[in-house]
Amino acid sequence: MIGPGFSPSGVITLTTDFGQEGPFAAVMKGRILARYAAARLIDITHEIPVHWPAEAGFWLARSYRYFPTGSVHVAVVDPGVGTNRDILIVEAEGHVFLAPDNGLLAAVINRAPSPRMYVLDARRVTHLDLPAASATFHGRDIFAPLAAELAAGRVAPDALGPPAVDVVPDWVEEPVVSRGQITGVVITIDHFGNLISNIDAELINPPTGASVRVGTHTLPLLRTYGDVSPGQYLALVNSFGVIEIARAEQSAAEGLGVGRGAPIVVHCA
Amino acid sequence: MIGPGFSPSGVITLTTDFGQEGPFAAVMKGRILARYAAARLIDITHEIPVHWPAEAGFWLARSYRYFPTGSVHVAVVDPGVGTNRDILIVEAEGHVFLAPDNGLLAAVINRAPSPRMYVLDARRVTHLDLPAASATFHGRDIFAPLAAELAAGRVAPDALGPPAVDVVPDWVEEPVVSRGQITGVVITIDHFGNLISNIDAELINPPTGASVRVGTHTLPLLRTYGDVSPGQYLALVNSFGVIEIARAEQSAAEGLGVGRGAPIVVHCA
Amino acid sequence: MIGPGFSPSGVITLTTDFGQEGPFAAVMKGRILARYAAARLIDITHEIPVHWPAEAGFWLARSYRYFPTGSVHVAVVDPGVGTNRDILIVEAEGHVFLAPDNGLLAAVINRAPSPRMYVLDARRVTHLDLPAASATFHGRDIFAPLAAELAAGRVAPDALGPPAVDVVPDWVEEPVVSRGQITGVVITIDHFGNLISNIDAELINPPTGASVRVGTHTLPLLRTYGDVSPGQYLALVNSFGVIEIARAEQSAAEGLGVGRGAPIVVHCA
Repeated sequence: MIGPGFSPSGVITLTTDFGQEGPFAAVMKGRILARYAAARLIDITHEIPVHWPAEAGFWLARSYRYFPTGSVHVAVVDPGVGTNRDILIVEAEGHVFLAPDNGLLAAVINRAPSPRMYVLDARRVTHLDLPAASATFHGRDIFAPLAAELAAGRVAPDALGPPAVDVVPDWVEEPVVSRGQITGVVITIDHFGNLISNIDAELINPPTGASVRVGTHTLPLLRTYGDVSPGQYLALVNSFGVIEIARAEQSAAEGLGVGRGAPIVVHCA
Repeated sequence: MIGPGFSPSGVITLTTDFGQEGPFAAVMKGRILARYAAARLIDITHEIPVHWPAEAGFWLARSYRYFPTGSVHVAVVDPGVGTNRDILIVEAEGHVFLAPDNGLLAAVINRAPSPRMYVLDARRVTHLDLPAASATFHGRDIFAPLAAELAAGRVAPDALGPPAVDVVPDWVEEPVVSRGQITGVVITIDHFGNLISNIDAELINPPTGASVRVGTHTLPLLRTYGDVSPGQYLALVNSFGVIEIARAEQSAAEGLGVGRGAPIVVHCA
Repeated sequence: MIGPGFSPSGVITLTTDFGQEGPFAAVMKGRILARYAAARLIDITHEIPVHWPAEAGFWLARSYRYFPTGSVHVAVVDPGVGTNRDILIVEAEGHVFLAPDNGLLAAVINRAPSPRMYVLDARRVTHLDLPAASATFHGRDIFAPLAAELAAGRVAPDALGPPAVDVVPDWVEEPVVSRGQITGVVITIDHFGNLISNIDAELINPPTGASVRVGTHTLPLLRTYGDVSPGQYLALVNSFGVIEIARAEQSAAEGLGVGRGAPIVVHCA
């Protein structure tokens, strides 16, 4: 019986740290299509920094709403593969997320309304005839078949295991708000060299007139890249609703020499 | 009413400068599938050099005929996003192209027979219920939904806005033909280090016996890489019909120290 | 008439050395969808080292079983394009492989049970109305249309040409087994810097207690990355059944300074 919470759209997204080399993401897709030929597959990215689940969770938490309701989101950044770490299933807002229980989904759990969490119990899915799992590639052997079955509507998230009661927390702390300032970190850097923080714009109060500090630079919070001249730095609320440091037509990351994990402080007006 | 000019095939191609990091191309796809679940999505490339629309236009102009008639080609290389640059819709030979009006589509307009051009007028598409656009990611918020509606056959290109009367020209000049020689530039470099010019072979008259000059090298115009020994340079008409400088089994770009924008001169026989 | 050996699933995989730049893989997909709109396309990888077919064959031979039976696997690593090298069609275990006859498919032929091999004869496929082939891009002009016709079930592999009697051998020798040791090579390196050899675990006899030598290091054969502390090296049987040298949470390739082609020796217990 499929519960009322998840009505699959047939879309499955993939987020990994596998890079573009080799057949790693491809064999996951092969295994999915072998079970559910009508699946619609979307690569979110395979360029999560190796073994850094926090970035995968950040992007999933900020992007899932742009995919059709009923999507299954598989994320495999899994340094603990083959050890006895759990596999987590999260259902929220009509989306389902599958990932190792290593903090990857913490950002989703912290931000989505009313998330429901389950821990995979292999004994409950014997009827799915999952293949024997290798010790090093659960993406192909466990996550892909489960995603196919979920997307095909042949199993419900809450049938995969018992509720999760104690999940691994995020590797990155949530932003701290105190006395008119908000402190977060650079969580990722995009292809343009923009520094993307984990500070949601809605934390800024009042919403206008703030400035943003990174390293020794304090930058005005503006609207878009074209608001400054080429080469100038600015801060803005980016298209995913978080504070971003950019340099018009250049790379802020290179120009400032700042990378992932660097502190970002917003000073409210 | 759908005009006679565009009969959608359901195929949508994506060309951007987003790179492989992050969910940027993926959320465009999510938004497309949410509106048109049967869309067939093809990534052309996401490795256009950052903020260099000319290469996107070059490739679109030379490759669109290899996609099914009725394809929608979305290209987002958009340094002016959030400023008041226009959005251009071009219809030619049964294909539709969507891009910022920043010169990106100039190569398509200059080469396709009888292109029809329109400028998006937001007031004409209110019935499409486009989402509120962010200031920095129109690919997701405007281009993706429009592409879905066009590919689904629910709106015609000429319904999106008035004819464009004055579009931004290409950032790269068309090749100059004079007195038995043709001067162009290296427009892109492929993964093999081949230098690909914007000089169409059909400009060469007579079509045989020409030589090609790049920097201080003059190279014979041959047929394929195997026509010279490994390590030797040659010029050829590549598979997209333009003059290319190659080095057999090695990188001409590295060997010659030549990059995008370098002049290429064809001397006709 | 379609023979009993190949019943297409509609899935087509692509393996090339084209990289992510430019529209090269995309125009192959465009040509496929133009002939067979329902094709399911999966990129295996486009990051095969330029002009090194052996890695493509290695991955295809180890991964095809993870794709649906009835898949068509197109591999284009083709330094001899435009010369008179043959095009090879291999059918094995309900899968079909298409590649230049340059050794690329040797690993598939050597390992798959009862492979059937054919050499493309252009005269037998005139009814398929293949486009005129360029001298430099048979992936788009020949392989893509053939793959579409095969995947659509409109032509059978054995109708494409006569049996192949003398195919180009692999560029890399098969592992040598003698006196309790097995000698192979590093065939590829994954995104994590793991060194992946061409030594199948089933060659190891007895199957337990072996050690693995690379350069001056001798490593225990363990089960998974978590079996050693971060920074330590280990050998394991990876998820594709071959011997791999890894470094927990770091890059073995960087740490050991070892690359493709380096010898790997397994000492059986």
